[in-house]
Amino acid sequence: MGYTVAVVGATGAVGAQMIKMLEESTLPIGKIRLLASARSAGKVLQFKEQDIIIEETTETAFDGVDIALFSAGGSTSAKYAPYAVKAGAVVVDNTSHFRQHPDAPLVVPEVNAHALDNHKGIIACPNCSTIQMMVALEPIRQQWGLKRIIVSTYQAVSGAGVGAIMETQEQLRAVLNDGLNPKDLEAKILPSGGDKKHYPIAFNALPQIDVFTDNDYTYEEMKMTKETKKIMEDDAIAVSATCVRIPVLSGHSESVYIETKEIADITAVKKAIANFPGAVLEDDVAHQIYPQAVNAVGSRDTFVGRIRKDLDKENGIHMWVVSDNLLKGAAWNSVQIAESLHERGLVHPTTEMKFELK
Amino acid sequence: MGYTVAVVGATGAVGAQMIKMLEESTLPIGKIRLLASARSAGKVLQFKEQDIIIEETTETAFDGVDIALFSAGGSTSAKYAPYAVKAGAVVVDNTSHFRQHPDAPLVVPEVNAHALDNHKGIIACPNCSTIQMMVALEPIRQQWGLKRIIVSTYQAVSGAGVGAIMETQEQLRAVLNDGLNPKDLEAKILPSGGDKKHYPIAFNALPQIDVFTDNDYTYEEMKMTKETKKIMEDDAIAVSATCVRIPVLSGHSESVYIETKEIADITAVKKAIANFPGAVLEDDVAHQIYPQAVNAVGSRDTFVGRIRKDLDKENGIHMWVVSDNLLKGAAWNSVQIAESLHERGLVHPTTEMKFELK
Repeated sequence: MGYTVAVVGATGAVGAQMIKMLEESTLPIGKIRLLASARSAGKVLQFKEQDIIIEETTETAFDGVDIALFSAGGSTSAKYAPYAVKAGAVVVDNTSHFRQHPDAPLVVPEVNAHALDNHKGIIACPNCSTIQMMVALEPIRQQWGLKRIIVSTYQAVSGAGVGAIMETQEQLRAVLNDGLNPKDLEAKILPSGGDKKHYPIAFNALPQIDVFTDNDYTYEEMKMTKETKKIMEDDAIAVSATCVRIPVLSGHSESVYIETKEIADITAVKKAIANFPGAVLEDDVAHQIYPQAVNAVGSRDTFVGRIRKDLDKENGIHMWVVSDNLLKGAAWNSVQIAESLHERGLVHPTTEMKFELK
Repeated sequence: MGYTVAVVGATGAVGAQMIKMLEESTLPIGKIRLLASARSAGKVLQFKEQDIIIEETTETAFDGVDIALFSAGGSTSAKYAPYAVKAGAVVVDNTSHFRQHPDAPLVVPEVNAHALDNHKGIIACPNCSTIQMMVALEPIRQQWGLKRIIVSTYQAVSGAGVGAIMETQEQLRAVLNDGLNPKDLEAKILPSGGDKKHYPIAFNALPQIDVFTDNDYTYEEMKMTKETKKIMEDDAIAVSATCVRIPVLSGHSESVYIETKEIADITAVKKAIANFPGAVLEDDVAHQIYPQAVNAVGSRDTFVGRIRKDLDKENGIHMWVVSDNLLKGAAWNSVQIAESLHERGLVHPTTEMKFELK
């Protein structure tokens, strides 16, 4: 009577939201299983007011699982997602590990649900900053084509996990209540838990998310470039990003500049966005209406506003795009992929094993 | 024995920094006079540990003043700066009022100090967000030319005055200490004291600074466009800005994309910036070195980093530019203009009255 759904990384910031999204989902769920590291195994979380005991993520933990949502870090996905596939589950992976794998579709359901067809067991959920940009830009791409994107992000700390949220709150309290100078604050996680140096985020803006690649862009920035091309199935779209962390707990904002192939009328662009599923037009500057992070938190939608022509380029358009990075940027997009798989009759074991068991 | 220097708006966030910059200035100051509104007249402030009684700003307050630094809002400058000029003073105006006036040079000393020659009594100090961008880009413009700028700002609340700083601190405390939801916070000043609606800045990013103009850009955004053309003396430079307030008290950050006329080598660009007065190169991503707002506060310099080629445009360059908005963005640039006037022998009454007495 319904699917057995597993959440891997159930104790994380995204995992908590995945559980909530599954509680509210239309997906027929027969049984829920919550997996995490050995450290959390045995603890109890709730699903629809029922106690669920957390199990350890192991190679043999996926027997009987139909859908497994992974959000416990790239190395956990690399190690265990192939075992989940082997056990007959369909994996929706929220980490970056399989996003560029040729056999893993990279899906924002409103944009490219068709890519789910013929999946081989693992579907990748794009990076938070990419997803909301795709929802805003796909209606424009469909009508006028897309040549180029330049994006600067204003990303919330919850994208870096529960520890980053606590670090931000502690730093802010140390300045506001104890009078510390922001530059003297202790930092242990941000800008990137995996990098050597850590810097304060309170009253700061950090132009580093994830570690740096060889071309002086960060991995986060290159995710936006590579994932856009894969999702929109067009390697010719030029994308350069600057990804910045700011002292906001949840809700990513983005200043997006695009050049379209054909010149677009701004009124028509606004209409196209307003009519696109998952996108909400919030654009009435005469009444100071534009998207704001604090208003987007808790919503599954992507909010778009400040849409205006470039002052010089006829095919240039600027806009401001905001969404809840834990929901559409992660947990909701993952659960939405699961719902799409169900609606398309694609929740079944794969017939070809394309992912290496390690 | 030195100049009589007046500070108009002495009680404001910028006024306080102007007093500090004058204390540390090489300018020969014989007497300091502190002016403000009638409300503040009679209060006492310190200059070099001496008590100075604040006087009311009136039409007749400028007798004997050699240099008057204005930072009390555009309407105060509009009303009183011409009277200061008539009384024989040279005015350095930190408000937007005279910036586009054909007879008021708009000056960033490192970039266009030559524009001070033949002044007519009022010199305008550019907007904070423009100044730091000019310091970063002028060395590039000089060597390779500049076709185009796309900038997204991450601006601190102190640019909106002491009230905005207090509002931000109160909102953050209400969330951190009293558990309020950021979207339910009370706001009275930001995004713009002069606009109808006010929104919370705590844990938010507000894509509005100053009020909106007819073309759906804000005045702040249009300042960056118009001021860049005037300072660089080139109307052909294309500039489109997105100006955003973030919950940082001081220190503006900017994600700047440019296209040069000639293709520039990135190593040469870094060298040109490092050698430019007022600019500091902070760019070593292998060691996570890049400009940060918290580190820029208190410095007169503009910090530039994350310099890298666009991934697709051969003449495209991205960078991250940070400076203390109250210092180089306002008080220091104003005092620096006064120092330049002195060094060039230009502190004298004007011979032609070009500004209307109201």
